[in-house]
Amino acid sequence: MPYQLYYWSHVQGRGEVIRLALEEAGVDYTDVAREQNSEEESRNVILNVLQDKTLSRVPFAPPFLVDGGIMIAQAANILLYLSDKIGLAPPDEPGRIFAHQIQLTVTDFLMEVHDTHHPISNAMYYEDQVEEAKKRSANFIENRIPKHMAYYQNILNNNPTKSKWLIGETLTYPDLSIFQIVEGLRYAFPNAFSEVEKHYPKIIALRDAISIQPNTAKYLASKRRIPFNNMGVFRHYPELDK
Amino acid sequence: MPYQLYYWSHVQGRGEVIRLALEEAGVDYTDVAREQNSEEESRNVILNVLQDKTLSRVPFAPPFLVDGGIMIAQAANILLYLSDKIGLAPPDEPGRIFAHQIQLTVTDFLMEVHDTHHPISNAMYYEDQVEEAKKRSANFIENRIPKHMAYYQNILNNNPTKSKWLIGETLTYPDLSIFQIVEGLRYAFPNAFSEVEKHYPKIIALRDAISIQPNTAKYLASKRRIPFNNMGVFRHYPELDK
Repeated sequence: MPYQLYYWSHVQGRGEVIRLALEEAGVDYTDVAREQNSEEESRNVILNVLQDKTLSRVPFAPPFLVDGGIMIAQAANILLYLSDKIGLAPPDEPGRIFAHQIQLTVTDFLMEVHDTHHPISNAMYYEDQVEEAKKRSANFIENRIPKHMAYYQNILNNNPTKSKWLIGETLTYPDLSIFQIVEGLRYAFPNAFSEVEKHYPKIIALRDAISIQPNTAKYLASKRRIPFNNMGVFRHYPELDK
Repeated sequence: MPYQLYYWSHVQGRGEVIRLALEEAGVDYTDVAREQNSEEESRNVILNVLQDKTLSRVPFAPPFLVDGGIMIAQAANILLYLSDKIGLAPPDEPGRIFAHQIQLTVTDFLMEVHDTHHPISNAMYYEDQVEEAKKRSANFIENRIPKHMAYYQNILNNNPTKSKWLIGETLTYPDLSIFQIVEGLRYAFPNAFSEVEKHYPKIIALRDAISIQPNTAKYLASKRRIPFNNMGVFRHYPELDK
């Protein structure tokens, strides 16, 4: 039975780190909401789970994964569960703990990225919080992007194996999430990030190495990779960029 | 060798969910920053780790835990690591996955709580983002508190064992985090939350049950429990409350 991933069909969002892992691993999975016949059915197949008051272990929000009899929510938790089964976990326990630690730091960062365009409320339109979004984005560009980039580059610098990956000698799932961060920041803040990325050559080398992994390259060139757009986590509003 | 917890000595913050777990379990631990002789030394014992550019697996931020040769960061990751060793994990694998899922949802919520008073930037004073904080807090009170409360209460309602705990028949570590959320919301938003909490009797019953667990009760009455204050995640600014 293939893994069943439940995530919104129109955005990369918080689900993309899981799609990237499943694709890179080349395993069989169903992107459930994307296999429905209409946008309404796509939404409902997710909402029906979230609103099922009889489920004893319901997700707070998508993404969630169904594997046989188990349903798992929270992107980093899903990756923790999947990574060993699909060959994207470090081989040793300390490596696995560190991979999850990096993934949780990525999770925090993605929430910060989201709040650059929605600093006041998710329940309000962007247009009603533009001024606040400008202030938050300016701070995000100045302080948060460099802080996160420096952190990930330091991990790459200090990998004792001197490989191009974050942990050990092989690609593991947080590498894919760093790729996603670079792609997202290039989309959302092209002016600001084109300056910033020059200072983090190892991160860009990691991004480039991921982009040519055969399975990932195929995925990125396919229709399964939803283009960035202004509904996801990474959005491009020129007034928020430098 | 006792566990060594590294977290800021003057706040509960993101470290409190770990202190609560260590205290409830009654295990030997050192709260490293709190055992220093001055505030400066307390800060430095943490900063020295964060700024050590030679460490191959450095934390992005505190809290972090040292256990023998391993250093682990991210509160939920630390709890995942500790919970089995200290007797606060569910006994079965699906229960453990669900406990971590709840903890990650709590993690998201705590980040949202923090951003009620810092919606623009952590690097700016509260006083310089009060107007934005008022807007964010109003939305947080109206939409986010009820959404999270309804989610946790639904888990309690649907626990097949009909116990008072979130998972199975015994207290597990996310129960302690729900206690912390209730205490924090009562401190930060006393007017708003006194209305809200009436609708979630099972959550309040869980909070009450935690408060009288012998080890936790002793901790809460001790000087080890840092009082809430306006430097942590939960802060009380009357202008942000109802």
